Amino acid sequence: MEPNLTKKQVGILGATGLAGQQFLASLTAHPQFAVAKVAASERSAGKTYAEAIGGHWYCKEPLDEAHAGLVVEDAAKMSANGLDLVFSAVESEPAKTLEPKFARDIPVISTASAFRYEPDVPIFLPGVNLGHAGLLAIQRRQRGFRGFITPGANCTTVGLAMTLKPLHAAFGVERVFMTSLQAVSGAGRSPGVIALDILDNVVPFIRGEEEKVERETHKILGTLRGEAIDPAPMAISCTCMRVPVLEGHTESVFVQLAKKSSPTQAAEVLRAYRGDGLEGLPSAPRHLITVRDEADRPQPRLDRDTEDGMSTVVGRLRADSALPNGLKYVLVSHNTKMGAAKGAILTAEWLLKHGHLT
Amino acid sequence: MEPNLTKKQVGILGATGLAGQQFLASLTAHPQFAVAKVAASERSAGKTYAEAIGGHWYCKEPLDEAHAGLVVEDAAKMSANGLDLVFSAVESEPAKTLEPKFARDIPVISTASAFRYEPDVPIFLPGVNLGHAGLLAIQRRQRGFRGFITPGANCTTVGLAMTLKPLHAAFGVERVFMTSLQAVSGAGRSPGVIALDILDNVVPFIRGEEEKVERETHKILGTLRGEAIDPAPMAISCTCMRVPVLEGHTESVFVQLAKKSSPTQAAEVLRAYRGDGLEGLPSAPRHLITVRDEADRPQPRLDRDTEDGMSTVVGRLRADSALPNGLKYVLVSHNTKMGAAKGAILTAEWLLKHGHLT
Amino acid sequence: MEPNLTKKQVGILGATGLAGQQFLASLTAHPQFAVAKVAASERSAGKTYAEAIGGHWYCKEPLDEAHAGLVVEDAAKMSANGLDLVFSAVESEPAKTLEPKFARDIPVISTASAFRYEPDVPIFLPGVNLGHAGLLAIQRRQRGFRGFITPGANCTTVGLAMTLKPLHAAFGVERVFMTSLQAVSGAGRSPGVIALDILDNVVPFIRGEEEKVERETHKILGTLRGEAIDPAPMAISCTCMRVPVLEGHTESVFVQLAKKSSPTQAAEVLRAYRGDGLEGLPSAPRHLITVRDEADRPQPRLDRDTEDGMSTVVGRLRADSALPNGLKYVLVSHNTKMGAAKGAILTAEWLLKHGHLT
Amino acid sequence: MEPNLTKKQVGILGATGLAGQQFLASLTAHPQFAVAKVAASERSAGKTYAEAIGGHWYCKEPLDEAHAGLVVEDAAKMSANGLDLVFSAVESEPAKTLEPKFARDIPVISTASAFRYEPDVPIFLPGVNLGHAGLLAIQRRQRGFRGFITPGANCTTVGLAMTLKPLHAAFGVERVFMTSLQAVSGAGRSPGVIALDILDNVVPFIRGEEEKVERETHKILGTLRGEAIDPAPMAISCTCMRVPVLEGHTESVFVQLAKKSSPTQAAEVLRAYRGDGLEGLPSAPRHLITVRDEADRPQPRLDRDTEDGMSTVVGRLRADSALPNGLKYVLVSHNTKMGAAKGAILTAEWLLKHGHLT
Repeated sequence: MEPNLTKKQVGILGATGLAGQQFLASLTAHPQFAVAKVAASERSAGKTYAEAIGGHWYCKEPLDEAHAGLVVEDAAKMSANGLDLVFSAVESEPAKTLEPKFARDIPVISTASAFRYEPDVPIFLPGVNLGHAGLLAIQRRQRGFRGFITPGANCTTVGLAMTLKPLHAAFGVERVFMTSLQAVSGAGRSPGVIALDILDNVVPFIRGEEEKVERETHKILGTLRGEAIDPAPMAISCTCMRVPVLEGHTESVFVQLAKKSSPTQAAEVLRAYRGDGLEGLPSAPRHLITVRDEADRPQPRLDRDTEDGMSTVVGRLRADSALPNGLKYVLVSHNTKMGAAKGAILTAEWLLKHGHLT
Repeated sequence: MEPNLTKKQVGILGATGLAGQQFLASLTAHPQFAVAKVAASERSAGKTYAEAIGGHWYCKEPLDEAHAGLVVEDAAKMSANGLDLVFSAVESEPAKTLEPKFARDIPVISTASAFRYEPDVPIFLPGVNLGHAGLLAIQRRQRGFRGFITPGANCTTVGLAMTLKPLHAAFGVERVFMTSLQAVSGAGRSPGVIALDILDNVVPFIRGEEEKVERETHKILGTLRGEAIDPAPMAISCTCMRVPVLEGHTESVFVQLAKKSSPTQAAEVLRAYRGDGLEGLPSAPRHLITVRDEADRPQPRLDRDTEDGMSTVVGRLRADSALPNGLKYVLVSHNTKMGAAKGAILTAEWLLKHGHLT
Repeated sequence: MEPNLTKKQVGILGATGLAGQQFLASLTAHPQFAVAKVAASERSAGKTYAEAIGGHWYCKEPLDEAHAGLVVEDAAKMSANGLDLVFSAVESEPAKTLEPKFARDIPVISTASAFRYEPDVPIFLPGVNLGHAGLLAIQRRQRGFRGFITPGANCTTVGLAMTLKPLHAAFGVERVFMTSLQAVSGAGRSPGVIALDILDNVVPFIRGEEEKVERETHKILGTLRGEAIDPAPMAISCTCMRVPVLEGHTESVFVQLAKKSSPTQAAEVLRAYRGDGLEGLPSAPRHLITVRDEADRPQPRLDRDTEDGMSTVVGRLRADSALPNGLKYVLVSHNTKMGAAKGAILTAEWLLKHGHLT
Repeated sequence: MEPNLTKKQVGILGATGLAGQQFLASLTAHPQFAVAKVAASERSAGKTYAEAIGGHWYCKEPLDEAHAGLVVEDAAKMSANGLDLVFSAVESEPAKTLEPKFARDIPVISTASAFRYEPDVPIFLPGVNLGHAGLLAIQRRQRGFRGFITPGANCTTVGLAMTLKPLHAAFGVERVFMTSLQAVSGAGRSPGVIALDILDNVVPFIRGEEEKVERETHKILGTLRGEAIDPAPMAISCTCMRVPVLEGHTESVFVQLAKKSSPTQAAEVLRAYRGDGLEGLPSAPRHLITVRDEADRPQPRLDRDTEDGMSTVVGRLRADSALPNGLKYVLVSHNTKMGAAKGAILTAEWLLKHGHLT
């Protein structure tokens, strides 16, 4: 493949895994980014991408032929030469050393959690917190990076923070109780969720998940003041569960607002939400949030693919009589689209548009 | 079958349906109750029970041979003669006329919701609210019954009210947010939940369910004062969902207590709970509540059958930082055992022991 | 909607049910057919289509706005006036009277089984048996129709007959043993398969299915001689089962051929199969049969949507050592696309192209 | 625990894995065998069994307290001292060295496939092939063992061979076509079947399975002549698939018999089958085969636990018109009871009774 020099040249770390494959699938024919290098573990190095995955391609979209022919490099040895940007889909442990190595030279946009909770690292949620981009200069200065590291949010955080954002702006969110019913794809494939554990069952525990969602939501909805993000001053409590669903996290949310809102007003606010600065981006949905009026929606199988998995679908908006200014609702968010690779790509498009990816 | 006159003679209304079958299964070789009559719709009348169900026996326990040979009567025409008690497993609509017809003469213990919200009708939860038995005399007087009607709680109410009872007694429950993940058996078989709707999916709505659970929990945990029950003065908000699980309702519960309780103290209180007056009853579990310490329990498939489905299993007891004196936990309760026929039988044993079934 | 008179005007019988909805979904923006009338039971008559389905639209494709506004007619009273063709998605029982009523005037292409086994009624499988069109004149003459009735094959027959056709032409098929693993959508929604029956389970029986598949395969692969179809002279034995899969029937097939074929030769023959006379038709797949080489394909979830559900996917082609010239394979066929409405539409396109739909 | 010297002292190799746990569960309170030693990998050595499994006990039966307190030994270093017998639940690879090590001194009854296809190693199926015990002396002589190795059959072979045995004796089996629908528990837990691969899906391939079933069935139904087993002279062809079922393998079987049998005669023969020499054994079912007459049975969820998973359940017995003297049926066999540990224990009881375990 002749490099397309009018596009940003991107590398994919962890390219052979499930999340890495989703990056490649979402970057096929992308108008702004061209995949120039793919990296994985030493074991895959030297093989073509198609050989390295050995026929195990897990995305619905076909594998791009140009991607199939790329020679996989050893991530530990790959250089940033010729790259404008890296998408990282590695596990948290290797991310700790690999991501800073690349960030010395170029931006790293990641799905790993390794750096999410560092004070100088923003967690971007597309449309929601562009104001956090000010942290990037601080991170560069503190870490001596020419690039930067920015991880996306946990897939369960995405739908919650996305829906709380406009409610918080309009009515003030004071207290949140959330129970998630998470899809098995959220656990990936190595080893992922074993069928023996989840058929005819619910597993009411996902290690570390509740803490992540609470902490990330506070950070994403927080405000950059000086050199740090002030967490959003709301109380958040989560219980995270796994259910026998393939894709699409469902969340039951109870919210206490500062100002009274009827379900109808809340629906209007959610429907009207367009986020900040997403206009014209190739991966942006027309609506970050879709509100459905039917009594029995959203449902993960029916609603996860709304706007190709990039819109959070909300329904069952009701007053909650057990809380002052209480509101309750159910949301479905696509955990492996907006909640993973494609969300990271939208973040990259958004940062590029606003001049943060140069 | 020679009638066993030392046992109470019971009739089953709606005997051929799923709930009716569960009554028969749970009454096989029962030491106190003998099934003397079975009733169903006109269509089944005159057939033996075995013929009437046409080979569709849905319980794991085998169909008792004596039950198989009983001749089914038309429920609309069956008399209370020779019966000490009726268990009713009919739908809510026919219950409205059938249950009072029998209550004129004998007690009716029901799984239907028809009379649950009448002020003179107690909803008994075994071990929990024996004090409500005082309503029975009021009901008799007001309705001119020699018997009475008492429906059991909705299957989703059972686990919630059972676990709130000892917490309320020890610490005071002020506010409750509950999200249920309900099994498909809760919808019965006619038509029940269609596989096309629930495979790889969650349905976040069950008509009328949330209102039932909120209302019934208030009533069950309330106090009989004079001629009526004072609902328990706590705020309760529910979101009820269906998941692809066969049996066992899972509930995620967030509670605000009046007095601070550590998770350890709460576990002790739940573990110590024995209820009121269940000693020696054939269908009573040794523990109304089982507390599990493992991080990933309770799970419906693994825990629903605890003490033959008669114990509510609790786990994931944690402090809830988003509420004053907050506590959160997950429970699993067997919806078609304690939550249906076998729970009704335990209620009957309990009322009998305490002299309310004469 | 202004009627588009350059297109054939079609009516849909049973338009509000699952199969009827699939007809409407597949006819949206169809270049040759325009939906002019929709009919259902008396209960729906007089309502707009959108009102009649009451928000229960089960297809992934959105409901066409023009279709949504059509006023539903009572199928028993609707006339053929203004129609060129009727697609029938009614149940077998009403089909017996409704379909002949319309066939008096116009062609009726049906998914119902009512007339499948009549000697003067061809069962068209697109690309496979155009030669059976000669029966239409006989049917017209015998029944006094200006139109005709032609039902599509049972959804389980489709994949089997489609794959046997080129094997039979190339090598001669003498004996077939087929076990099907059928999706729950094959049973529709009224009542369809109950979740309680199929979760964590297999149901090894579908009433009438095995007889249908055996009989229809013989007929579809048979030869029109004089006034009747000579059934294909092969022995066929089926066992039909239901599995917890949403869409896509999987079939395990063992075949005895007249002439030896290696798996490679069989794969070539299947891959090369283009059927007869489908060129240029809007709903025709590029390949009626897709052969996959991976050891673990086809799988219903991964392969059912191949060519929008219109291609039968075959894999695991192996020699069968227990039969003379034995061959075995697995196929997946989309039961509610090629196996139902969209297959019927392709049949209509095919008959139109070849002059049988005038 | 005081060793019970009137019982045979047994060791369990691979005791901490899923199959190992099933051995312990099935040996709790066993009247003839007492678990004296448990062995696993070096990592677990020195811990108590309860510590070693770290709370991951996967059986429904509770973990026996005496078993919980046993100190786990390193299988590579454990001696046969004090043991009368070893049950081996290790993987095939370590079995190759571990099993002969113990067989030098004592019998090894295994669930691993390592030695299944050696000419001097019998595969015992309880009740079916006691005549193969003559191979044990040959194995001892050839390998210099004082003990011996005997592996059980693959879980998919068990139901097939069990049902073919009496049919073969009565009518002669000439040709068999079998399609299996296998439960996910058959793949164990490391890694087992990933939920992402099997929800809403069928996987039509299990590596090596078809070859195992064909080969083992020939061997089990074969005849010991001189120093080797003559494979049963029937043609067998299998296609093995995985379905979203937890426990219980379903098999669709088409059989060509030497002598004509009606389905009724076949049912009689299957029902009457008692096997050879199982009388009075603690783990033996009353009926090795249970025949059900209902049109829609057997079903894995409803029938797998018949006689505690030790009886193969057969239904849908029909004449097969595509074969000379053709018969077809469906069976369900419990893959982790009769098909694994409990089947091995029954084999041990049976060999003990007949003097082969001294």
